[in-house]
Amino acid sequence: MTQAFSSLRINADRMLDSFNQLALIGGTADSGVDRPSFSEAHLAARAWLRRHIEANGFEFRTDGAGNHSAILSCDDSSAPTLILGSHLDSVPNGGRFDGALGVMAALEVLKTVRENGIKLKVQLEAMDFTDEEGTLVGLLGSAALAGHLSKENLEKPRGGRERLLEGMARAGLSDVSMLSAARKRETLAGYLELHIEQGKRLERSGTDIGIVTAIVGIWSYKLSFIGKADHAGSTTMEDRRDASLGASAFALAAREMVMRDFPNSVVNVGKMDFVPGAFNIVPAQVDAALEFRSPDDEEFKRLDKALLELARSEAARFGLELQTEFLGKHLPSLMDADVRGAFVDSCDVLGLSHMPLPSGAGHDGQSLADLCPVGMIFVPSVDGASHSPREFTKWEDCVNGANVLLQAALRLGNG
Amino acid sequence: MTQAFSSLRINADRMLDSFNQLALIGGTADSGVDRPSFSEAHLAARAWLRRHIEANGFEFRTDGAGNHSAILSCDDSSAPTLILGSHLDSVPNGGRFDGALGVMAALEVLKTVRENGIKLKVQLEAMDFTDEEGTLVGLLGSAALAGHLSKENLEKPRGGRERLLEGMARAGLSDVSMLSAARKRETLAGYLELHIEQGKRLERSGTDIGIVTAIVGIWSYKLSFIGKADHAGSTTMEDRRDASLGASAFALAAREMVMRDFPNSVVNVGKMDFVPGAFNIVPAQVDAALEFRSPDDEEFKRLDKALLELARSEAARFGLELQTEFLGKHLPSLMDADVRGAFVDSCDVLGLSHMPLPSGAGHDGQSLADLCPVGMIFVPSVDGASHSPREFTKWEDCVNGANVLLQAALRLGNG
Repeated sequence: MTQAFSSLRINADRMLDSFNQLALIGGTADSGVDRPSFSEAHLAARAWLRRHIEANGFEFRTDGAGNHSAILSCDDSSAPTLILGSHLDSVPNGGRFDGALGVMAALEVLKTVRENGIKLKVQLEAMDFTDEEGTLVGLLGSAALAGHLSKENLEKPRGGRERLLEGMARAGLSDVSMLSAARKRETLAGYLELHIEQGKRLERSGTDIGIVTAIVGIWSYKLSFIGKADHAGSTTMEDRRDASLGASAFALAAREMVMRDFPNSVVNVGKMDFVPGAFNIVPAQVDAALEFRSPDDEEFKRLDKALLELARSEAARFGLELQTEFLGKHLPSLMDADVRGAFVDSCDVLGLSHMPLPSGAGHDGQSLADLCPVGMIFVPSVDGASHSPREFTKWEDCVNGANVLLQAALRLGNG
Repeated sequence: MTQAFSSLRINADRMLDSFNQLALIGGTADSGVDRPSFSEAHLAARAWLRRHIEANGFEFRTDGAGNHSAILSCDDSSAPTLILGSHLDSVPNGGRFDGALGVMAALEVLKTVRENGIKLKVQLEAMDFTDEEGTLVGLLGSAALAGHLSKENLEKPRGGRERLLEGMARAGLSDVSMLSAARKRETLAGYLELHIEQGKRLERSGTDIGIVTAIVGIWSYKLSFIGKADHAGSTTMEDRRDASLGASAFALAAREMVMRDFPNSVVNVGKMDFVPGAFNIVPAQVDAALEFRSPDDEEFKRLDKALLELARSEAARFGLELQTEFLGKHLPSLMDADVRGAFVDSCDVLGLSHMPLPSGAGHDGQSLADLCPVGMIFVPSVDGASHSPREFTKWEDCVNGANVLLQAALRLGNG
């Protein structure tokens, strides 16, 4: 690492300009963005990114999974690729920073490396991964790239098969193209991502940069509590088999159980769909969207068993049937030690405070962690807000993160 | 009452033929019907009814509320009108009998009276009331006819203003026309309705006919439990303000409270809408559709107070805000003693067993009960099923009910 490399910095104003342009696409009245995978707004953001990459003179590349990227080639065309990236899709009514910051920072790193005439020993690729958030499948583009995507993932996506087919059609993709996007292990030098923390630990401790130790795994299910539709006036309370009771009791008891017995894990019932869903009909069926996360495999297995057992017992308590549909899982992933070391060195060079911390959120890095060295850094989220229009990170923290990403890429790309 | 009158019977095969034709319109694969107010299927059923009325040589009449009727005029044009009727709209994915049986039986009574050359002292009118089920407002056509409909009912309908406007537009109606449909008290001789019981009391006791004593009142609210959207992975369980917890706890506690403290009342949470409703976002808001019913005003007031207090305390327990929107009420209604007497006499003449019972379901008769004498009869529902495709009444019970309706109309129309 030469002294010259260590003094390089990204162009904060240029990155801000790109970031703000992107934030307008799918922007909401309350300063958030609404760009679920392959929605109109998301397709517009993808088109904008392509124009931006090409207008800046980078080679634009896309693959069968719809991942979009800018390439900064190495003189040695057989050199492996160091990917920097994140995603442009958002949760419904989400924030401006989640994903978008990482993509804009990755592009800014490529611009900075190129304009300084730096020759690295890797291809640099700034990537926007498809459907990170899980409107359709979750970590879709990165799983496809890593070769982890299965036909079953595509046939039983958590957002519903019809929605996935519609989305892929809108983006010119298909099951076949998706399964063709896998890259070979030997072509990859690593994957680095800058992201907002989406929690309060950095803010509370006054730390500039979080260096991720591991990404929690995520399992998801559709739990269907099934009772009987009846007239809500003429059926006695005792005669009802009200599906909402099982779903409600499960949501309450699952939270209590996780807080009591699984302190490292979290659980969410993000949605309940009532069938038929009328004021004057006893609910016949309630479909609950269940997601839970844990940092280690052993705890996951216990938690999975305990949650399903709880759902069964709450259903039985109210005379309901339970149907469970497993919608997929992502295993917990350890971040690479050398990459973490490069982040530490970069923070030290930049005079930024840093701390190790696990990621409670899932990220594309977990798809790639068994394929190549993967690392992530976090910058502070004000009030920990995330997946919400209230999501906010101070621009100086975004710039700090981008500079750590740049410094780590220089270190890893030069080794 | 002449002996000749007492021996009159409706034409069971003719009524079955009409009933079956109607059941095909909006019919579902599982033998139910799906005809929510002013849906395509409901409009088709209304059009079919009009053709059927005209093809059978009756005068067809409609009013500003979209109520459709067949008229069998009295020689004395100033004589008041005895209305027989029910409704063609259904709940989403409902049954074939609810409402449709009453309309078809009313028409069959008019056909029978006319073909036997009987001259009554009233105009007979067989009516299909608009939006009985409450997809839009509930008891909409009968409230309009009774002059009870207010601008507020139309401005804050429980199905949403937009849906009401769309529905009215499809049927060629408007707020102004709705409010013009009121009839004068002195023009009405009474209102009789045949309906399925929608409960198990007649079936359990082996009784042919239920003679309704009172119709319960119905109050409805939208309860909004409001928390905060957050990332479902990176936000600790302790830091969440999960709106689903308040809604779930309320649904469970409301049921327990009603069963314990309000044995004559029932409560239903028929739907919960999750906002934003994604696997990986802590629910920011849950809107719960609350409806409760009671046979007397005093109990209603206590129940109303207790339920709102419960919602407030459950919201507070989970750090949530509560917003309540009152969506309307129908008061409990006593059935007319003379009409009940006519039903008793009719059952006795027909050799049918009968029992008095309250109606836990709301019906159009409650709109009219303070305007003219109102009475209702029930026929047995197999397994008490209702508001469901499983809804079923044996055809001989339907015929029994139609004959009681005929006999009572002859008695009341001849007095």
